[in-house]
Amino acid sequence: MPLSPSILKSLTTPTISPMAKSTPKFTQSALGWAAHDSSGKLTPFMFKRRENGVEDVTIKILYEISGIVIKVGSNVSKFKVGERVGVGYVAATCLDCELCNSFQENYCDQMKPVYNSIHWDDTPTYGGYSTIMVADHRYVVHIPESLPMDRAAPLMGAGLTVYTAMKNSNLFESPGKHMAVIGLGGVGHMAIKFGKAFGNHVTVISTSPSKEKDAKEKLDADGFILSTDLKQMQRNRRSLDFIIDTVSAKHSLGPYLELLKVNGTISIVGEPAQPIEVPATPLIYGKKVVRGSIIGSVKELQEMMIFCGKHNILCEIELVSIDKINEAFDRLSKNDVKFRFVLNVAAHQYSSRL
Amino acid sequence: MPLSPSILKSLTTPTISPMAKSTPKFTQSALGWAAHDSSGKLTPFMFKRRENGVEDVTIKILYEISGIVIKVGSNVSKFKVGERVGVGYVAATCLDCELCNSFQENYCDQMKPVYNSIHWDDTPTYGGYSTIMVADHRYVVHIPESLPMDRAAPLMGAGLTVYTAMKNSNLFESPGKHMAVIGLGGVGHMAIKFGKAFGNHVTVISTSPSKEKDAKEKLDADGFILSTDLKQMQRNRRSLDFIIDTVSAKHSLGPYLELLKVNGTISIVGEPAQPIEVPATPLIYGKKVVRGSIIGSVKELQEMMIFCGKHNILCEIELVSIDKINEAFDRLSKNDVKFRFVLNVAAHQYSSRL
Repeated sequence: MPLSPSILKSLTTPTISPMAKSTPKFTQSALGWAAHDSSGKLTPFMFKRRENGVEDVTIKILYEISGIVIKVGSNVSKFKVGERVGVGYVAATCLDCELCNSFQENYCDQMKPVYNSIHWDDTPTYGGYSTIMVADHRYVVHIPESLPMDRAAPLMGAGLTVYTAMKNSNLFESPGKHMAVIGLGGVGHMAIKFGKAFGNHVTVISTSPSKEKDAKEKLDADGFILSTDLKQMQRNRRSLDFIIDTVSAKHSLGPYLELLKVNGTISIVGEPAQPIEVPATPLIYGKKVVRGSIIGSVKELQEMMIFCGKHNILCEIELVSIDKINEAFDRLSKNDVKFRFVLNVAAHQYSSRL
Repeated sequence: MPLSPSILKSLTTPTISPMAKSTPKFTQSALGWAAHDSSGKLTPFMFKRRENGVEDVTIKILYEISGIVIKVGSNVSKFKVGERVGVGYVAATCLDCELCNSFQENYCDQMKPVYNSIHWDDTPTYGGYSTIMVADHRYVVHIPESLPMDRAAPLMGAGLTVYTAMKNSNLFESPGKHMAVIGLGGVGHMAIKFGKAFGNHVTVISTSPSKEKDAKEKLDADGFILSTDLKQMQRNRRSLDFIIDTVSAKHSLGPYLELLKVNGTISIVGEPAQPIEVPATPLIYGKKVVRGSIIGSVKELQEMMIFCGKHNILCEIELVSIDKINEAFDRLSKNDVKFRFVLNVAAHQYSSRL
């Protein structure tokens, strides 16, 4: 998983159960990094992953949950040892409900995330900050050979989040649409890349004038709206088909709804702790739509990976050695990262011995 | 127009311009009821409607803005003298924009409502509390012969509001869907009628246990959820495809979003003065949609009228003589009306002389 504030928060709650570590089926040694107390400081520890089951693959993690297959279960035909793979948000789902049966397993009521969760077997899912991972192959995807593994790693989270939200709002293969992204961080910058690849006119909306240069010069955005400038906001009234809102702070959608054309959609992918304020007047007098979306399905993840391979879509990252994980979290809490940190697990001495 | 709190509020601002009454083209005498000062009390007054233009029909109003055509302009072929017609929310639009050209003229940026607005010619639109009205035929619809005019009158507002919101969310001709309505007033009760006619399973959600009897016995609803009862709310988690929210008081969508299935939609047709609160978590973890909608287009209004004629869909009303308009507004401000008041204009002595 790429580092994000919500993960940081979740890590301050200890998730390691001593009982689980003694379960006999847990035979594969791993070195992991986790918070063992409420300080939130991550320290390395040795633990056992489950043995590689018939539906499983074991992955040597290079960068967060992307890596190389090192073991393949007897029922798995889709993956081979040595292949480059990634795991997204999902560790397990019921595989039997309407959502699982319609490629929307990420919304399954029984879904267990790969981190900060308790698996079916009552053990913690342990997350991806470790040297190896055992994953049910149904939640694993191929990473195209053309994509470097480090810059592809956050596609699994940030990339999929925007790709799916945009696809579900019919932005995919709809060239000429006018879209905008609110918030130019790890998630937001990927919306520019997908928007451009889909053939859309892409605008960045920000409260910070300093983002304009990055948006236009580094990321090739077509437009920039400074949301604190009322004249700019009024000039762009009813100009956008779609907005993706990546903001995780408390905010109102009022000013952004005014920017949407009639029938326009604003897709919420951030998760502010306080309710988002939606004034009824611009919503109803423009037949506007507010839509929520979280990550994406495995099918969408694999589709997105193929699309990224074809269009050479990669994340802007700052690579951090896993030994520096706590410094990275400190900087993250101060918003001191441009787009995404990626943890280099492979560089660790233990990993190289695998 | 059916009486509603927002109209009541608008009427406290005087809208009568003396200049307009002296405009020479205004040749047709009408008796109207309007607030002439900030007391909000409506009193009768004589004024002139514009002459019947080439695109116009003049209507003798029977019940609010439904009545009988008494004059037809030379360019009008769709209507004949003596026909039963109605006028919705729209008095004029630009007729030239993308929205006007795609049967969404109710969202046209230049739209002028039939009440509380200033027309192109700088005169007030005067509204429907009067004995006659002159309307551009492009905003007029036929009322089927089978429908009594008094109970059909609020179809133009309350009926169209829910019909359009439900149709835009694919409820129309989608039997078997599970839908609910929040708020069982003038607008809300029509959602039950359309939902049943569409073949859906219809639930009423209310804070008031006393509504259950009306919902089920009088209006044939299939289910009832008391929203203050947490157990009932939890039992119905992820059970609904669609909710129509008619509430005009401040509220949070949080509890209602939990009732929706993944991919479910909540359609907002009320207009609370304060922002609606939308917690991100149930929105994003269920790919849910919040959609705004206001009234409907003339095309949708005519379609709805035909549908209502076919299925005998009518509003539950309390008929009030136009002479008692102030008592009706007083009762409305105290929420003392079950579904809809309809003003009987035809019963007035002046009207009978037309």
